[in-house]
Amino acid sequence: MDATPAPPDVTGTLARFVADSEWRSIPPGIRHEARRALLNWLGCALGGCRDEAVCTALDAMRDFAGPSQATLLGRGERIDAMNAALLNGIASNILDFDDTHLRTVIHPTVPVASALLALAEHRGASGADFLHALVLGIEVECRIGNAVSPAQFDEGWHVTSTCGVFGAAAACGRLLGLDAQRLAWALGLAATQASGITAVHGSMGKSFNMGHAARDGLAAALLAARGFTGGEHCIEAARGFARLFVRRPDLDAPLDRLGTAWELSQVAYKPYPCGIVAHPVIDACIELRAALLQATSNAAGNAAFDAGPVARIELKVHPLVITMMSNAQPATGLQAKLSTAHVAAVALLHGRVGVDAFTDDCVSDPGVTALRGRVALQADAGIAKEAVEATLQMADGTHHHRRVAVATGSLERPLDDRALEEKFRVLAQGVLPAPGAVDALAALAWSIDDAPDVGRLARMSSPTGE
Amino acid sequence: MDATPAPPDVTGTLARFVADSEWRSIPPGIRHEARRALLNWLGCALGGCRDEAVCTALDAMRDFAGPSQATLLGRGERIDAMNAALLNGIASNILDFDDTHLRTVIHPTVPVASALLALAEHRGASGADFLHALVLGIEVECRIGNAVSPAQFDEGWHVTSTCGVFGAAAACGRLLGLDAQRLAWALGLAATQASGITAVHGSMGKSFNMGHAARDGLAAALLAARGFTGGEHCIEAARGFARLFVRRPDLDAPLDRLGTAWELSQVAYKPYPCGIVAHPVIDACIELRAALLQATSNAAGNAAFDAGPVARIELKVHPLVITMMSNAQPATGLQAKLSTAHVAAVALLHGRVGVDAFTDDCVSDPGVTALRGRVALQADAGIAKEAVEATLQMADGTHHHRRVAVATGSLERPLDDRALEEKFRVLAQGVLPAPGAVDALAALAWSIDDAPDVGRLARMSSPTGE
Repeated sequence: MDATPAPPDVTGTLARFVADSEWRSIPPGIRHEARRALLNWLGCALGGCRDEAVCTALDAMRDFAGPSQATLLGRGERIDAMNAALLNGIASNILDFDDTHLRTVIHPTVPVASALLALAEHRGASGADFLHALVLGIEVECRIGNAVSPAQFDEGWHVTSTCGVFGAAAACGRLLGLDAQRLAWALGLAATQASGITAVHGSMGKSFNMGHAARDGLAAALLAARGFTGGEHCIEAARGFARLFVRRPDLDAPLDRLGTAWELSQVAYKPYPCGIVAHPVIDACIELRAALLQATSNAAGNAAFDAGPVARIELKVHPLVITMMSNAQPATGLQAKLSTAHVAAVALLHGRVGVDAFTDDCVSDPGVTALRGRVALQADAGIAKEAVEATLQMADGTHHHRRVAVATGSLERPLDDRALEEKFRVLAQGVLPAPGAVDALAALAWSIDDAPDVGRLARMSSPTGE
Repeated sequence: MDATPAPPDVTGTLARFVADSEWRSIPPGIRHEARRALLNWLGCALGGCRDEAVCTALDAMRDFAGPSQATLLGRGERIDAMNAALLNGIASNILDFDDTHLRTVIHPTVPVASALLALAEHRGASGADFLHALVLGIEVECRIGNAVSPAQFDEGWHVTSTCGVFGAAAACGRLLGLDAQRLAWALGLAATQASGITAVHGSMGKSFNMGHAARDGLAAALLAARGFTGGEHCIEAARGFARLFVRRPDLDAPLDRLGTAWELSQVAYKPYPCGIVAHPVIDACIELRAALLQATSNAAGNAAFDAGPVARIELKVHPLVITMMSNAQPATGLQAKLSTAHVAAVALLHGRVGVDAFTDDCVSDPGVTALRGRVALQADAGIAKEAVEATLQMADGTHHHRRVAVATGSLERPLDDRALEEKFRVLAQGVLPAPGAVDALAALAWSIDDAPDVGRLARMSSPTGE
């Protein structure tokens, strides 16, 4: 009844790929990137684990929770693996400090690792099996993302959630040893739970999207493992995931060079804890601040910065910056995550944008508020996503200009291992006060594929020690 | 930046409606319809509670489950309320014997009651508070469905799941006593979990869609109750639920005559346990069988029917029948749910289509298989959804014709209370062997708003008694 050619067997091919993959076929560079992704994710989870969103969700779910199977990272408490996936997913995203698969803007590790580590700790698994499943989950997640990007993101879906559920299902299904048939069902059960909208951004719902993707992907794998059927072509079917979420999916993309090209090689790590689209702006403002300080003969880069003479901060940005982060006067830390004006003001005032830039206190700080009001955003389709043209118009009529072509933390200017570990340390040190605890956890993450039991990674994140 | 007029405040208005509603404002006819919906749903849950899908999902979730808070209907076992919502949602849909909100083709009670009864049993609630919340949940669910119908259904979304999560959130939020602010967050957290695709139909994933909608709606309410924020305009926002799921939502529909017109008045109950679009076909085949038996001078309507002389069964149907139920030769009971040919053959052979028509045995029965192969479906946009033109071409060149204008169980030809209770009894009697148990449960459902503790309804569904 349908004259269009049959779509490629995306679901079945990905399922077979995950079922048949061998650890030795994962290139050393990809294994190392997986360790980097793990360290970055773990740091984000530790930094976010005491956030109000995590505490509130735990309060809500505690009465309904099952046995103590998996650790709430950085908190020491244990809970059933389904709830651990949910809560660690919220915790590891709440700071907006994720890794990013640049083609899709998916933050790949959060939903996959949150589900997988909870399951692995519960069932017992070696670090190598864990890392292998993590690589495969991220691969499936980002490849499915490739089929629906950029349209899905542009329309307002929260792609890390809609695609993350597949990654979590694939990774957990692999760890459970599912055959290709059951992995296909797991992907189908993921497809029929795929959800997450950006209309909740600016609320705790944003990070909840990561949590439910992790929880639902784990559930999909657990159900399929028991023989719960879930369709076999749910990604590519005429009324399946890809065609429902975007009008013209690219169904060849998920299978392109499968097993030879790895999506983890396209992952970058954020130097600033907010939407990646605003990172060029932050770089530019930090550079402009340094230049201004130098111009005023103040040699020390960290010296007090006088924002008074700055009349106007003009930012020519890619249109996506406006779509994603145009809140001009945020009222809360969560809202400030969506405010390019806020991060520009903080970068200019303080020369850095850390986790403390998104506290309610910082958002209502009079100096920040005043400077924020002088930011003028201008969309320019001629500016690349990685770039910005920033101009400070001074009260005396002079101006200072900076063009950033590619932001720090992009694939062209990546955080190296040392910078990534430093990011981890800053996030972890507030949570792990015991001498050597941060060192030990970082060392374990860097050598995770030698660990006989990956659950130790979770337990060592406890503030009171393992 | 956007010249389009602001959309109506759908989320906030529905939240206030649910928060402010008073029991006395619910018309008696709607209260009675809610009791009918409850009885029908309970019967479906009892009939489906031992299905392989329920057993498999329970196997998968048991290790992760929390305290014994709520009853698995018809099974006596107890589990945490989140999992009870999931599993009772699967059980009460698996037979495809639901109620139907005809404008949207939503089966409204399944996700709402599955979540609500689990919560109500856990927290303790009167029957009147339960029934009130059930009415409000169904109202919200179907009104949101009105905004996205028929496009959402036509494109392949499983509308009972995508809209059911809102109904479950609203009902549970009401029972938890949430104010309008928190109800709006609950609706936002529902919106960002809204999911369910029809590509899983023909697998256990279909009924899983009901289960996860119930579970996720309950989670949304529980989270919002603790202060977990979830946006305030997630239904009508530019990048919100309605516009993401369909291109041109009708955002006025959810608020049309709110509080004076009730969606429960538009709900019908299935006389046959399969997709409602095939019900006119079943009616026609049952009538044709009776006519043929009479024509061959066989006075008893239940006499053996000889299908041999039937050369061809021609069915002119609404195009939706082809879209939804065109599987010509199903291999399993679940696949047969999507086969108009199968239900036509069974109706003609046996004069009835009950739960036993969807066993694997019936699907592979040689008599059924042979007759199924003679069914010819023809889409005709001139045929109404409630109608069919059916013609039996006989081997001797004669033919018999029936036109069904409106199927049994439609709003025009509804099941009355007696027929609905009989449907309940048939479904319940296999599960509740104790003398008087079915009577007592039916009586409690009919008078539920007088019950001090609605949890008794769940506990009385146990095969070993309360």
